[in-house]
Amino acid sequence: MTTAAPSIRVAIVGLGSIGREVLAAVRARPGLDLVGVADPAFAGRDAGEVSGLEPCGVTVTADVASALANGAEVALVLSASGVADVIPAIEAAAAAGADVVSTTEDLSCADFATPELARKIDATARAAGITVVGTGVNPGFVMDRLPVTLSKVCVRVDRIEVTRVVDVATRRAPLRAKVGVGLTPDEFDAGVAARRLSHRGLPESCALIGIGLGRRFDRVQSTIEPVIEERPGVLPGRVAGLRQTAIGMLGGREIACLRLEMSLGAPNPHDRVRIEGEPPLDVLIQGGTAGDPATVGAVLSAIEPTMAAGPGLKTVLDLVLAV
Amino acid sequence: MTTAAPSIRVAIVGLGSIGREVLAAVRARPGLDLVGVADPAFAGRDAGEVSGLEPCGVTVTADVASALANGAEVALVLSASGVADVIPAIEAAAAAGADVVSTTEDLSCADFATPELARKIDATARAAGITVVGTGVNPGFVMDRLPVTLSKVCVRVDRIEVTRVVDVATRRAPLRAKVGVGLTPDEFDAGVAARRLSHRGLPESCALIGIGLGRRFDRVQSTIEPVIEERPGVLPGRVAGLRQTAIGMLGGREIACLRLEMSLGAPNPHDRVRIEGEPPLDVLIQGGTAGDPATVGAVLSAIEPTMAAGPGLKTVLDLVLAV
Repeated sequence: MTTAAPSIRVAIVGLGSIGREVLAAVRARPGLDLVGVADPAFAGRDAGEVSGLEPCGVTVTADVASALANGAEVALVLSASGVADVIPAIEAAAAAGADVVSTTEDLSCADFATPELARKIDATARAAGITVVGTGVNPGFVMDRLPVTLSKVCVRVDRIEVTRVVDVATRRAPLRAKVGVGLTPDEFDAGVAARRLSHRGLPESCALIGIGLGRRFDRVQSTIEPVIEERPGVLPGRVAGLRQTAIGMLGGREIACLRLEMSLGAPNPHDRVRIEGEPPLDVLIQGGTAGDPATVGAVLSAIEPTMAAGPGLKTVLDLVLAV
Repeated sequence: MTTAAPSIRVAIVGLGSIGREVLAAVRARPGLDLVGVADPAFAGRDAGEVSGLEPCGVTVTADVASALANGAEVALVLSASGVADVIPAIEAAAAAGADVVSTTEDLSCADFATPELARKIDATARAAGITVVGTGVNPGFVMDRLPVTLSKVCVRVDRIEVTRVVDVATRRAPLRAKVGVGLTPDEFDAGVAARRLSHRGLPESCALIGIGLGRRFDRVQSTIEPVIEERPGVLPGRVAGLRQTAIGMLGGREIACLRLEMSLGAPNPHDRVRIEGEPPLDVLIQGGTAGDPATVGAVLSAIEPTMAAGPGLKTVLDLVLAV
C-alpha cells in the first residue's frame, strides 16, 4: 500500500493573463495546493474571482512576502520579463525558504545578459537553500530544451538550426503589441531601439544551447527586423510582426542558428529543429507548440524537478523528467 | 582563465558492433579517456585493433574487474539485453566504485519485468555509492525520453501515441535476424514463443512513459506480429520483420500506445509522437532517428549526467541535460 505524497504548497506572484491560467491549472491539478497569491493590482480580492473562476478562498496580497507566509514551498513568479524586476520576489522567496519557478524570460539564462545579477541570485539562493529556475515554452522549451534534448542522441553536433513560426492572430493582444503589429516601420525601428519591441529570451535560448552542448558560445549575434504587411486591405505597409534571429558562434564558426517569426497571419506556423551531425536529425512540430497553454504546462511541470534540484540559480537544463 | 576539467576515465564492457562504435567515439571525444576494455572473445588483443582502428594501447581483458582496475570512473556495459546477464558486470563496477551506463534494453526500466533484480541492483548501487542507468535510442530516447520531454509543456495529457518505423535494410544483420527477416510465419511464431524474436525494451519504454507522466500504469499490454513480405521476388510469403505494440493502461483507460515496425523495406521510415491533451502536440522526426549512431550518442551523452545523478538504479528520466 502506498500513501499519497502530501500536496505541494504553491504561491503565485503575478496575476496577468499567464498568472490566471496558471492559477486555474494549479487549482485543477491534484497534488498542488494554492496557499497565496501576490499582485498589487488585485490586492484584497479573491484570487479565483480575479482569474474568472469560483472564489478559491485565497485573498490576493500586494506584497510577495505575505503571499508566501502561509508555508509556501514554491513561488511561481509570473510578473515580469527582466531579471532585475524579479529580484525582490526572489529575495522574498529566499527569506521564506520557497523555491522559485519563473516565466521571466531573461531568467532562463540570466548569466547571458546580466552575469552580475545571476551571481547575486545564485548566492542568495544557495545561502537560503532554495532553487531558482526560469522556464516557459520559449524560452524554456521549443528553442532550447528541446534541441538540447535531441542533441543527446548525436555522437557529434556540427550545427543546430531551430525555426519557430507563430501566427500571432492566434495569441493574446499583449503579444501582438510586443511584436509591433500595426506600427509603421519607423515606429517599429524606434521601438526596437528603445528595447520596447522584441521577443525576450531568444539570445538566452541560444546561450542555453551552447551550455547544453558543453560548448559555451564566444558570442551570440542577434538581429530583429519587421515583417511588413503586404496583404491588401489589412494595414498594407504597416508592421505585421517581427523576424528575429540569434546565432551562437564559437571559434569563428556558427554552431546554432535560431530563427523566430511572430507575425499576423504568418503562413505555416510550426516549430522545427534540424541538427547537422551524426546522426543528423530533422524534427518538425506540426502546427507548432501553442504558446500559452504550453507556458502553463512548462511552469507546472517544473515545480517538482525544481524542488528536487540542488540550491542555486539553475536552468531548464538542470531539470530531470521524473522525481 | 579556466582550467580544463580532468578527463573522465572510461571502461567498455562488450566489444560487439555497438561496443566498437562506442570505443571509436570515446577515443574521438575530448574529455574521455579509455582505460580498460573487457570482452572474453577478444582477450589479450588491442582494443583499438579489434574495433578496426589504430592500436590504442588498451589490451582487452576477459573479465570486467580487470578492465576497471585502472581507475575507471564509469563502465559502459554494452554486452547483453537482459538484466540478469549484466548483474556480474554491475557488481564488478560496484566493487570498483565505477558508475554504469548500459545499453541493456531491459535495464532501461528494470523495475518493469524484473522488480526483484531491480531492487537488488539498486541496493548494490546505493551501498557502493554508484549510479546505474540503462539508455540507448530505443529504449532510452525515441519512444520514452522524447515523448516524456514533450509532455512537460502540456497542462494535461490524455493520451500519448508513439510510432517508430525502421527499414531494417539500413541496419545491422543481427538486428534483421532479431526481427525475424527471412523466416517462415511458423518459424516466426516459434521464435516469439521462445522469446528469441522481438524488439527488446518496448514494454519498458511504455512503463517509462507512465513514470514520466507521474502515473504508473496498472498494466502494459504487448503484442508482436510478423510483417509478411509481399513484394515479388523478395522471399514472398516469408517474414520481412515485425510489428510490435505496447499499450499502457491506467484505470481501464489507454494512456500510451507505442507502435514499432521494424521490417525490410518498410515504407516511410520515421518517428512520430502525438500527444492528445492541452496543448496537443504532433512531432515528426523526418526519416527517423538512425539507430546505431544514435545509440552511441545516447551512451556518450549519458556519461556525465549519470555521474552527477545520486547513487542507485536510475533511468533516463533522472538524467539532466547539462552538468
